[in-house]
Amino acid sequence: MSPSPGTTLRTMRERKPLVHQITNYVVMNETANATLALGALPVMAHAREEVGEMVGLAGALVLNIGTLSPPWVDAMLVAGAAANAVGTPVVLDPVGAGATRYRTETAKRILTEVEVAVLRANQGEMATLAGIAAEVRGVESIGAAREPSEVARHAAATLGVVAAVTGAADHVSDGENVLAVANGHELLASVTGTGCMASAITGCFLAVRPDAPLEAAAEALAAFGVAAEDAAVEAKGPGSFHVGLYDALANLSPDTLDRRARIS
Amino acid sequence: MSPSPGTTLRTMRERKPLVHQITNYVVMNETANATLALGALPVMAHAREEVGEMVGLAGALVLNIGTLSPPWVDAMLVAGAAANAVGTPVVLDPVGAGATRYRTETAKRILTEVEVAVLRANQGEMATLAGIAAEVRGVESIGAAREPSEVARHAAATLGVVAAVTGAADHVSDGENVLAVANGHELLASVTGTGCMASAITGCFLAVRPDAPLEAAAEALAAFGVAAEDAAVEAKGPGSFHVGLYDALANLSPDTLDRRARIS
Amino acid sequence: MSPSPGTTLRTMRERKPLVHQITNYVVMNETANATLALGALPVMAHAREEVGEMVGLAGALVLNIGTLSPPWVDAMLVAGAAANAVGTPVVLDPVGAGATRYRTETAKRILTEVEVAVLRANQGEMATLAGIAAEVRGVESIGAAREPSEVARHAAATLGVVAAVTGAADHVSDGENVLAVANGHELLASVTGTGCMASAITGCFLAVRPDAPLEAAAEALAAFGVAAEDAAVEAKGPGSFHVGLYDALANLSPDTLDRRARIS
Repeated sequence: MSPSPGTTLRTMRERKPLVHQITNYVVMNETANATLALGALPVMAHAREEVGEMVGLAGALVLNIGTLSPPWVDAMLVAGAAANAVGTPVVLDPVGAGATRYRTETAKRILTEVEVAVLRANQGEMATLAGIAAEVRGVESIGAAREPSEVARHAAATLGVVAAVTGAADHVSDGENVLAVANGHELLASVTGTGCMASAITGCFLAVRPDAPLEAAAEALAAFGVAAEDAAVEAKGPGSFHVGLYDALANLSPDTLDRRARIS
Repeated sequence: MSPSPGTTLRTMRERKPLVHQITNYVVMNETANATLALGALPVMAHAREEVGEMVGLAGALVLNIGTLSPPWVDAMLVAGAAANAVGTPVVLDPVGAGATRYRTETAKRILTEVEVAVLRANQGEMATLAGIAAEVRGVESIGAAREPSEVARHAAATLGVVAAVTGAADHVSDGENVLAVANGHELLASVTGTGCMASAITGCFLAVRPDAPLEAAAEALAAFGVAAEDAAVEAKGPGSFHVGLYDALANLSPDTLDRRARIS
Repeated sequence: MSPSPGTTLRTMRERKPLVHQITNYVVMNETANATLALGALPVMAHAREEVGEMVGLAGALVLNIGTLSPPWVDAMLVAGAAANAVGTPVVLDPVGAGATRYRTETAKRILTEVEVAVLRANQGEMATLAGIAAEVRGVESIGAAREPSEVARHAAATLGVVAAVTGAADHVSDGENVLAVANGHELLASVTGTGCMASAITGCFLAVRPDAPLEAAAEALAAFGVAAEDAAVEAKGPGSFHVGLYDALANLSPDTLDRRARIS
């Protein structure tokens, strides 16, 4: 069960799992294109009338509260319950938890009512949900009182999830083990929604390895990080980096990924 | 009335018709930019309070159910009725028909309650609506039991529309004649929303040739396909291809389009 | 209090103000990325449940009616009142005012119920709101009966705002003085949402200079215009121009901005 992101990526491209995403308006196009570029199939659907049926077709469900409102929260809960009922793994991205009570409470409510396999967040959001002091400005994490590896481990243990904390380095924990992922590039912070893309890609990997969420989350972050490193090479700024990210995800070979992944 | 996409494109750029789009959250920016790059004017408006008035200003209405919910379906029906009342042509893109009952039934409901000029769909969606066995995974078409030209002809005859089935090659039919469009590039499948863009561009052409929906739809697909061929030349993957597509739409000359369009 | 866009930009990058945006579906990703590229922090939040709390964290609030519907209009009014209560400056972008009664009336309602610091609009929208005859096609301005500088001055005096009219040249007025901004590039008109980006960037500058809305608005338009000039250099069309715009915003140095800004 040790991480082998290249193997998972190869299987993903063969199976092309459907990844159902109920996400925010800002990044829908971006997470759909990241999913497609990597080799899985995205579908966005949020109506109560269809989320249960749609998630039944999917290999993973990604919930993201970036532009939440009551009908969307309802849809997330309905879809989450439907996913749980058939054992489809769920990723939660608690965008902006800590910034407003509504976001914090919604994230907690989803964590309570839905069995979440992987919680993918920045350090401020994760610390907030784990009950650790943190500073969040809008949807950006400014800092937290503890090391990110400890935030991940504590959140995972407290919340009963695999916690994936992204930042300068990423840390993924199941409450006992912590995997550090040292891939990535600082330009990721200059494009909106790259955290949301990381969550979508986590869904893609989890659809292939539903029984190994710790490894799947670390593999996903390694894959996204290596693609970011590739995209940065010819980038002239956040615009060209953003475009290059899709090219890099599509061109990422399993062998390259295994060679360059820095998971420890 | 034979197709001359270059002539239609030249007229479009002179008249700059307004193309009213009620479409999904994932692709709104993309279809607006494709419309603008080509030379028409996009407008997105979905509130019941204004769709009737807005469509009165437009040369075509494009309905797309990619992220449908009841208020949006209502808006589509209101706008569709308003378009019909003044003879403004309507394009329907039944995204994901066949994937969930809600999508299939909504697409059928719009086809029943609104006079649709052109139904633009992938093979799985079109087959579903025409009552032909098909496999749809999420919003992607996997396959159908018949040849796409036959799916187009059958759907057109059954549903009383011009049916435009896009895929490796595109097929447009009014129920009797079938036009095949052999332009395009496989990278189109690597970017989300290119089908939606094809529908928006169909609306642009239909706004110029409202009385010739068969020809307008084929011309639109030829124009989009030639632009895709141009964009693919320097593309390094789906990201740069996507960007190049807008450049190519804007730089597409009517003469080039007529010379390279492969409509038969 | 004379304009010094470079100084304001330098301060912005140090302070990284949060700019709360309640904007349209078409451009959310684009205005968020423009905000981030420039050096401020965007946050999109539209639920009644949180807009008051979120705006309390922000340095400016940007309201944009591009894809309005009743719940969103309510959210804008709630957020606007909360911003006013704590003295946070508000930018309004009345997208499509003049095209439908709903848009015109909503823009007027916001102007009545919320103290708007800067109204950023194209000439047709501004003329409509100022009671000057104008032609609007969808969300595009076609023309107006007066010079844009006069439209700006008249709108500012009539509506009690700083009026920023963008077009081939931009004009900003507080009802007495008029600042003309001669930066920009015609490719801006070929990408959807560049007006919305200009409004978002106006919010970024206003967050730094809340007491000088005339200067802040002119500085913002100069900054966006210089970035557009830079992006145009290697652009091959609207797609590559759009991408280059984010690179140019991120790479814009305060000194360059001061040297090239053409504010008079």
